[in-house]
Amino acid sequence: MNRSNHTQHDRSIGADFLHLDPADAPHGGLTDWLTDRIRTAITDGDLPRGSVLPATRTLAADLGVSRGVITEVYRRLAEDGHVRGQGRAGTVVMTGSATSLPHPHRPDPTAPRPLFHPTPGPEVFDHLRRAQAHLDLSPGAPDLAAFPRAAWLSAERSVLTDTSATELGYGDPRGTPALRSAVADWLTRTRGIRAHPDQVVIVAGTAQALALIARTLGEEGVDTVAVEDPGSLGVRQHLNHAGLRTPPVPVDEQGLDVDALRATGARAVLTTPAHQFPTGVVLSGDRRRALTRWAREGGLVIEDDYDAEHRYDRPPVPALASVVPDRVCYTGSVSKLLAPALRLGWTVAPPHLHDALVEGKRFSDLGNATLPQLTLARLMASGALERHLRVLRARHRRRRDTMIEALRAHLPGARVHGAAAGLHLTLTLDTPVPDTDLAALALERGVKTHPLTWHRQRSGPAGLVLGYAGRPETAIREGVAVLGAVVTDLAR
Amino acid sequence: MNRSNHTQHDRSIGADFLHLDPADAPHGGLTDWLTDRIRTAITDGDLPRGSVLPATRTLAADLGVSRGVITEVYRRLAEDGHVRGQGRAGTVVMTGSATSLPHPHRPDPTAPRPLFHPTPGPEVFDHLRRAQAHLDLSPGAPDLAAFPRAAWLSAERSVLTDTSATELGYGDPRGTPALRSAVADWLTRTRGIRAHPDQVVIVAGTAQALALIARTLGEEGVDTVAVEDPGSLGVRQHLNHAGLRTPPVPVDEQGLDVDALRATGARAVLTTPAHQFPTGVVLSGDRRRALTRWAREGGLVIEDDYDAEHRYDRPPVPALASVVPDRVCYTGSVSKLLAPALRLGWTVAPPHLHDALVEGKRFSDLGNATLPQLTLARLMASGALERHLRVLRARHRRRRDTMIEALRAHLPGARVHGAAAGLHLTLTLDTPVPDTDLAALALERGVKTHPLTWHRQRSGPAGLVLGYAGRPETAIREGVAVLGAVVTDLAR
Repeated sequence: MNRSNHTQHDRSIGADFLHLDPADAPHGGLTDWLTDRIRTAITDGDLPRGSVLPATRTLAADLGVSRGVITEVYRRLAEDGHVRGQGRAGTVVMTGSATSLPHPHRPDPTAPRPLFHPTPGPEVFDHLRRAQAHLDLSPGAPDLAAFPRAAWLSAERSVLTDTSATELGYGDPRGTPALRSAVADWLTRTRGIRAHPDQVVIVAGTAQALALIARTLGEEGVDTVAVEDPGSLGVRQHLNHAGLRTPPVPVDEQGLDVDALRATGARAVLTTPAHQFPTGVVLSGDRRRALTRWAREGGLVIEDDYDAEHRYDRPPVPALASVVPDRVCYTGSVSKLLAPALRLGWTVAPPHLHDALVEGKRFSDLGNATLPQLTLARLMASGALERHLRVLRARHRRRRDTMIEALRAHLPGARVHGAAAGLHLTLTLDTPVPDTDLAALALERGVKTHPLTWHRQRSGPAGLVLGYAGRPETAIREGVAVLGAVVTDLAR
Repeated sequence: MNRSNHTQHDRSIGADFLHLDPADAPHGGLTDWLTDRIRTAITDGDLPRGSVLPATRTLAADLGVSRGVITEVYRRLAEDGHVRGQGRAGTVVMTGSATSLPHPHRPDPTAPRPLFHPTPGPEVFDHLRRAQAHLDLSPGAPDLAAFPRAAWLSAERSVLTDTSATELGYGDPRGTPALRSAVADWLTRTRGIRAHPDQVVIVAGTAQALALIARTLGEEGVDTVAVEDPGSLGVRQHLNHAGLRTPPVPVDEQGLDVDALRATGARAVLTTPAHQFPTGVVLSGDRRRALTRWAREGGLVIEDDYDAEHRYDRPPVPALASVVPDRVCYTGSVSKLLAPALRLGWTVAPPHLHDALVEGKRFSDLGNATLPQLTLARLMASGALERHLRVLRARHRRRRDTMIEALRAHLPGARVHGAAAGLHLTLTLDTPVPDTDLAALALERGVKTHPLTWHRQRSGPAGLVLGYAGRPETAIREGVAVLGAVVTDLAR
C-alpha cells in the first residue's frame, strides 16, 4: 500500500531550485552549462517526473540571464525527451532517474506508479475506470441507467428523416445552427446567459473546451491559469498538458478566495462558482462581487459550469457569464445531464476570444459530428431534456439523502461537504492516515472512490469524494459501510 | 474578379528576407532592433498576412546570431499579435498593414480576401460551403444521398438496446474495443495492414489525426513535414496551423518524387500513395520502393489513405503501412465511405509514437463519442458497410464516366487526371487565365469547384478539381457545360 508522505503536493518548483549560479558557467557556454545542470538534476532524481519547471520569464529574471537562453535550454531538454512543454508556457519533467532513458512518451515500465498516488499521472482515470470493483462510488457521472434511450432513438430517427444530404458533408466548425440555437435558449432559460447562437461553439465536452481555451490563451501570451484548491484533478491535468501553470487558490466556505487569487498575479482563473468541485461550496455574494471586480479590472474567468442544473434546494445562482460576459469563457456539457459518452458540450467565449476559439475547433476536428448534435437539439427544443432532468433530480436527491444517512451511521466523525447540489459529496476525516491509503484499501474491498488528495495541490485534511448519482440506494449503503470499516481498520 | 499574379505561391519566406544585417543593430540592442525591423515590415505590408517566417534555426544561422535571440523576437511579435506561432515551429504573419492593429485573431474587416485567392485563409472551406451555387462540383465527399440511413438507425437501435450504463460514462481515449476490433479487421481485409486492435486509435476524422500526429511530431522535435505538390490545401493548412513547415515535393506521373523529398531534408512526409490528391496518381512500384527505403533509413511517413476503397479498375494497392509499419503513421476515415459529418476516423501509429498519440487524444477530448462508434462497429462487422461501398462504387463509376464524357465534349483541350479511382477528377488547362478566375466565374454562374492553385505551393498549369461522386448525371453534364463556357469566355 502507498503510504507516501503527501504533506506537500505542489508540483511546481521555485525559481531558486537547484541553487543555480550562472557565474559558474564557462564563458560563452551558459546555455550548454544550464542545460546540463537541469538534465543532471532530472536523471539524478532531484527533479522527479511530473515536476513543473519555472516559467522561462521567472527563471530568466531569477538568474539574471536573457529569456532566450532559458527558452533554448528548455527546447533542448524537450528535444531529448527530458521535459515536455510548449514554447513559452509551462514545462513538465517527463523522464525519471535512469542511466538509459526510456522513450520520452512511455512511462518507465520498471516503476509503475500506484493507482492512488497523491500526484497521479495522466492515465489515472483510465486505470481507475478499468479497476475491478463491486461498488463504484467514484464521482463524475449522473445516473446513466436513466439515459433516455427511447427518446434519443426517436429524436435520431426524425433527424435521419429530415436531414438533407448536404448536412451530411463537412459542417460549420462552430456546430450546427439548430444546436447552437437550442443551447443559446437553454443558457438563457437555465443560466441567465443572454448568448446569441453565433456566440455558441459546440465542442466535444468540457475537456475539449479547456484544450481550446488553453491554446487560445497561450497564443495571447497567458501562461498561467489559477485554479481552485481543492479543485478538479482532471481539469488541472488538462490545463497543465496544454502548457499552462495552475497555481492553487484556496477555497473556503464562501468559495474561491479572491484576495488569494489576486496575490497569484495570474491573469486568468478557472472556477466552478455554482457548485465548487469537489467541496460543493456556492460562491458567496461578496466573493461573487469581488471576482466580478477582478474580472472587470482585466482578469479572465473560465467558468466551468459542470453541474449547475443539479441544485436541489432552490434554483441555481445565475452563471458569472450572465454578469460579466466580456470577461468570462463559459463552458458546459451534457456529461452530467445525459452521459459523458456523448462528448457534447458548448462554450461561450468573450468576443475577443471567439474567433480564435473557432479556429482552434476547426483545426482540432473540423467540428463535432452532426447527427448527435441534431439529436440533442431536438431533445432540448422539445422539452425532453428538461423532463429527463426533473426525473434525474428527484432520483439523485433520494440517493444523496441515503448517502448522508449512511455516512452518519458508518462514519460519524466525517464532515460532509457540498450536499445542496450535484452528483457527489466530499467528506473530510480527522485521521492521520493518507486518504490515498483509504481509497486503496476501499478498492481492495471492492469500493471505488477518489481520494481528496487527488484534487488538492496544497496539503489539507484527508478526505474522499463520493459519487451517489449512479448507484441504487442499497449499493450506496453497502459501499459506505465498507468505507466506515476501512477508516476504522486503518486508524488502528 | 481576382486576377492577381500567382506564379509564385510559396508562402514561406527566404532567410535573406528584408536584407537584415545585424551589424546595423545598436550594441546590446540586437533583439529590440530585430523585433522592430520585422514589425515594421509587417505593418508596412512587406510581409503580408499569411507569410511564414523562416524557422528560428534557419534565421539564426543566416544572421549569425544565437537562436535564442530569434526565439525571443518571435515571441514578442506573437505577444503583440503580429504573428502566431508555436515555440520552435513555424511562425505565420497574422496582421496586415494598418496604423492601428486590429485584434490579432480577427481578420481585418477592411480587407476581405476574395474566396478564390491563390493562398486562401483558414476559413476558405467555410466560405465555399456557404457560397450559393446551383451545382456543387467541389470535391471531398461521396454520394451523401446514398447514406444508409435505415441501416444506421437500425444499428443504433441495437446499440442502444445492448449498451450498458457503464459504457455511457467516460470511455477509453483510444476508442471503444468494439470499433477498434472492427477497424483492425477492416484494415487487414481491405488494406493489407496487420494491426492489433490495441494499435488502433479512433479519432474525429483525418483532421484530428493530423492535429494529433503534428503535435506528437512537434514534441519529438520535428518541425517540418514535407507534402506532395500538388497536394491537399486542407491537409497543408492543418499541418501549418500545428506549427509545422510543409515544403513541397513534386508529384509526377509516378507519384511523389522521392529524390526531391530527400533533398528537402525533411524527416517526415505526408503522402496519399493509393490515389494521390488531387492528381489521382498511384505511387509506382519504383517510387514505392524508394519511399520505403527512405522510411527504413529513418524517415517517417504519414499515410493519408483517404479514398483507397474507391478503386474502380482493380483492388487498391496495399497501404504503405502494411510494408513498413514501424515507419508509417496510417490514417483513414469514414468521410469518403459514409459521410464527413460523422467525424469518425482511425489512425495506426508506429509503436514509438502510439502512447503520445493516445495522450494527445485524451487531452483533446477524452475520446470519441461512444454511440456512433458502436453503431459504426456494427455496420462494419455485419458487412453492411461493405455492401454500401459496393453500391457507392458502381454509382460513382457511372458518374465519373459521365463527367469524362462531358469534359471531352465541353473542354476538349483539358487534360484529365486521376480517373482510375476516387470521387474527383483533376483537369489541367492550357490557358494563361489563372484558375482562381475560372473558379470565381464558374461560381458566379452557379458551379462550385476548387481551383487547382489552392492545392499547389509551386506554380504549375491552371486547373480545376471536380467532384463527381455526389451529383446526379444531369447535374454533372450541366455543370461541365458551364465550365466549358467559362473557359471559353475567359480565354477571349
